[in-house]
Amino acid sequence: MNVFRVIRPPDIFTLLNLVFGFMAILFAGRAGGSSTQYALVFILLAAMADGLDGLVARKMGGSPLGANLDSLADLVSFGLAPPFLAISAFHLPPLIWPIAIFFLLCGALRLARFNIVSAKSDQNFEGLPIPAAGLALSASVLLGWPQLTILLMLFLALLMTSSIPYPKIRDLRLMTLFSGVYILVAAVLLWRHDTDYILYAALLLAGLILLYMISPVVIKRLRKGR
Amino acid sequence: MNVFRVIRPPDIFTLLNLVFGFMAILFAGRAGGSSTQYALVFILLAAMADGLDGLVARKMGGSPLGANLDSLADLVSFGLAPPFLAISAFHLPPLIWPIAIFFLLCGALRLARFNIVSAKSDQNFEGLPIPAAGLALSASVLLGWPQLTILLMLFLALLMTSSIPYPKIRDLRLMTLFSGVYILVAAVLLWRHDTDYILYAALLLAGLILLYMISPVVIKRLRKGR
Repeated sequence: MNVFRVIRPPDIFTLLNLVFGFMAILFAGRAGGSSTQYALVFILLAAMADGLDGLVARKMGGSPLGANLDSLADLVSFGLAPPFLAISAFHLPPLIWPIAIFFLLCGALRLARFNIVSAKSDQNFEGLPIPAAGLALSASVLLGWPQLTILLMLFLALLMTSSIPYPKIRDLRLMTLFSGVYILVAAVLLWRHDTDYILYAALLLAGLILLYMISPVVIKRLRKGR
Repeated sequence: MNVFRVIRPPDIFTLLNLVFGFMAILFAGRAGGSSTQYALVFILLAAMADGLDGLVARKMGGSPLGANLDSLADLVSFGLAPPFLAISAFHLPPLIWPIAIFFLLCGALRLARFNIVSAKSDQNFEGLPIPAAGLALSASVLLGWPQLTILLMLFLALLMTSSIPYPKIRDLRLMTLFSGVYILVAAVLLWRHDTDYILYAALLLAGLILLYMISPVVIKRLRKGR
């Protein structure tokens, strides 16, 4: 089978997601300068490519390669690049590496589980989706507080492998809001190099993801209230 | 679904493969010293874990997570770690990065295709398997000749996505031979730090993979001769 011939439009976005994830790792591996910011910008671009890939797949139909490629790209961009960024940016010692490894393993298990059970439920994800976990972890790195990032790594790993139902964001207004915030944060990281702006941008991104992280509790309360 | 409860013995080896791949990336990211050698040792360990995972899965039966997890680990250990090692070890400039990205993309496409067509043929792989490509690329880095590694990156990427039938190595004697060479090379890299030994170890590994790379031609000739 000529694998280049079976590539469909949504796959292009999936491959872009993978490329952005790899670029994030390359920048995270470079010491000093603005490389941490660039790494986060690439993780944001990967998240946007991931969103577009889903949107295009729903409009134009998926491809045979789709589901497999999607997991591969997501693991690199959101399961591997963020903990690698945390280790590189904070020069975390090998003693802490097992926590980063735990995050990566939970991300892989989350993706493998999704591929088996995804057909069953169309409304909710089971466990925190890996892009949200990866974005939250990467944003925390910019806050410059290693202890928080380490704790978050553990907590996000557990949320990913939990059975908590997370809503699928397919509402176009919500998707636009998320993309808007991503673009704003990416723009600040690229063009404003003063610490204050970077801090605000990281907090804005972290806040948005936090809202999503606690959304299952809110949804449950709203349903009870009805 | 509690994802930790569905983990089966072969999955343990797959997760080990992923951990070794991540360790290889962490060591590749560290500049200087023996970190390149350590990165290659971890890629060799990942290849051994990958082999054991297949062996155990055939003896004890696969797991529901198996196929998905396997691709994820293989992409990290053999699709991402080797080109990242090449870029880090040789300080390859961004101009060369597209070739590394091409290797990664072809690796992902190879894995995604394998997951769709694997049921069809039980005797041969379609295209060079990603562990062989990753090992060959990593071994070439130790030879210290960047031009060779860059050319190899392109060539291996094309071999992976080709339709050339590669034999599946399931013969226990052959598997033992491969593991023996891996362990020997890993031992040399860990305990002998003089350049001569490292060069011989890299050549031995590269030679073994090269034999496998040309095996389709040999098999075709032998079949014609019959």
